[in-house]
Amino acid sequence: MNKINQKIITIGGGTGSFTLLSGLKSYPIELSAIVSMADDGGSTGVLCDELGVLPPGDVRQCLVALSESSQMLRELFNYRYYNGSLAGHNFGNIFLSTLEKTSGSFDKAIKEASKVLRIRGRVVPVTLMNIKLVAVLNSGKKIIGQHNIDEADLTNLKRLKLKPKAIVNPEAVAAIKKADKIIINPGNLFCSIIPNLLADGFSQAIKQTKGKVIYICNLMTKLGQTTNFSVIDYIKTIENYLGKDIIKIVIYNKEHPDEKLIKRYNRKGEHFVKSGDLSRRPKIKFIAKNILSHKIYQQTKGDRIERTLIRHDSDKIAKIIYNLS
Amino acid sequence: MNKINQKIITIGGGTGSFTLLSGLKSYPIELSAIVSMADDGGSTGVLCDELGVLPPGDVRQCLVALSESSQMLRELFNYRYYNGSLAGHNFGNIFLSTLEKTSGSFDKAIKEASKVLRIRGRVVPVTLMNIKLVAVLNSGKKIIGQHNIDEADLTNLKRLKLKPKAIVNPEAVAAIKKADKIIINPGNLFCSIIPNLLADGFSQAIKQTKGKVIYICNLMTKLGQTTNFSVIDYIKTIENYLGKDIIKIVIYNKEHPDEKLIKRYNRKGEHFVKSGDLSRRPKIKFIAKNILSHKIYQQTKGDRIERTLIRHDSDKIAKIIYNLS
Repeated sequence: MNKINQKIITIGGGTGSFTLLSGLKSYPIELSAIVSMADDGGSTGVLCDELGVLPPGDVRQCLVALSESSQMLRELFNYRYYNGSLAGHNFGNIFLSTLEKTSGSFDKAIKEASKVLRIRGRVVPVTLMNIKLVAVLNSGKKIIGQHNIDEADLTNLKRLKLKPKAIVNPEAVAAIKKADKIIINPGNLFCSIIPNLLADGFSQAIKQTKGKVIYICNLMTKLGQTTNFSVIDYIKTIENYLGKDIIKIVIYNKEHPDEKLIKRYNRKGEHFVKSGDLSRRPKIKFIAKNILSHKIYQQTKGDRIERTLIRHDSDKIAKIIYNLS
Repeated sequence: MNKINQKIITIGGGTGSFTLLSGLKSYPIELSAIVSMADDGGSTGVLCDELGVLPPGDVRQCLVALSESSQMLRELFNYRYYNGSLAGHNFGNIFLSTLEKTSGSFDKAIKEASKVLRIRGRVVPVTLMNIKLVAVLNSGKKIIGQHNIDEADLTNLKRLKLKPKAIVNPEAVAAIKKADKIIINPGNLFCSIIPNLLADGFSQAIKQTKGKVIYICNLMTKLGQTTNFSVIDYIKTIENYLGKDIIKIVIYNKEHPDEKLIKRYNRKGEHFVKSGDLSRRPKIKFIAKNILSHKIYQQTKGDRIERTLIRHDSDKIAKIIYNLS
């Protein structure tokens, strides 16, 4: 590996971060993955409720992405049980949550798991507080919990917030401040990306950094949440929480996915993200590239949550990010 | 650590092996722990049934005993859940069983776990076959499964066997053949110790080794199984399976346990093991020592199986074994 020549941080949730980190980890960079802590669905939700721990799922995906341990160990950490008393659980989640119980802290658990998995870089929870994501609709109605919000219609969303107020993890602030590039990952906009921006002190830190803020836009819209969103709409929504003129570069995909795959999404009301009128945002540098993955993704047996199938190519995005100056 | 000057193997189950290995691991020896594979109770039994894996419990205890990793990781591997969907399970068992699922072999799972836990020496299952322990009583009645046998009255036991016939793990044979000392551990006689001796090829290997066979006798009897057993009775029972004149040295405890503790056992029909008439076995070298542990043991919350409280002192036994010539 060459000498480390830049510091990059990524901001996101599980799946989107996994893709990006898998690609970035082969470059000579100092890498920090800042991860949302709002997840409360699936195996993660059960562990939080039953063991009284912080949500392990998103952190686990980032750890596995950055792992340089054996394929065997990485497969182990992603293993999901499909029958018996462990059905629906994921091994890596159980590992992190149990380590949190025995060590007494989520932070220690992440650091020990990082050693076991021999990770490049580090994974930093955006907050170490036990919080819930709350969506306040225009009507005043509130939806509580990321899993519920993920399934709700957010057409009339007024604002997302965290409850109780979350203080940003000082380790995240330190990483942001010294970063050369700050990547806002693709991923579930309201449930994985924005929850990071809600932590008290987070957007202030981003405003103070000299690092370049780069946004990698999603590939597909989500019905009732980002219906008909263009790249411009995604940017605007993030700016509602982060502030205007913070995002300097936007990378988006211009390669049209396979028609059959597109149709499968369309049937669920999900559509290919179009660029929108980019001339409306002259201060932003837009980079349009062919960045689709052509790997075949399959649902994991026993997985309770549906996974997307149109994905970014991790190597292609990593190369673009690394070479940006 | 000094240069390795002897090869020692231990033969046993979980708890008894744990004690011995914890003590032996600080000496400059090449250490192999041969472990019974008949366990089918508690968390282990549930995992075997649900995931179709080999029993992890005894192997896990030996791995933790030999681990040189952080205290945090060792505590993690011994952690037992006491509520929610994981109640009764043990983390280390889940780790091994899931690794067996993802790697496709118990042997590979043990080797990978050995790396994660940075163990000194190695843990060798006595067989890699999926077997059940069977007790045949004088009446012809059969009791199937170690857990059932553990709870049964074995006063009229005719013979124990494994079903199907288990072929001994070649790695165990190789270890036995080149060992300087072969230790038969204390532990549950019919459920943890003898099941090792039942594997096809095991006692032949012991007969062929030039190593010294040393037996460390139990401290307390077990009602309906080793009721009123003396040291001599334990030896005789083992010889029924291993052959006569194989055991050359017997180490037994001569220190009387605390009266209060003794009474707690007595109420359950369990008694302090007396030496018996040692003159009946002139070919055996008997070593009587004060080898009781004076640590306080507590039941782990969530543990479904009762643990003994009068235990051997691992450092004292290890010292005796190491210094034997």
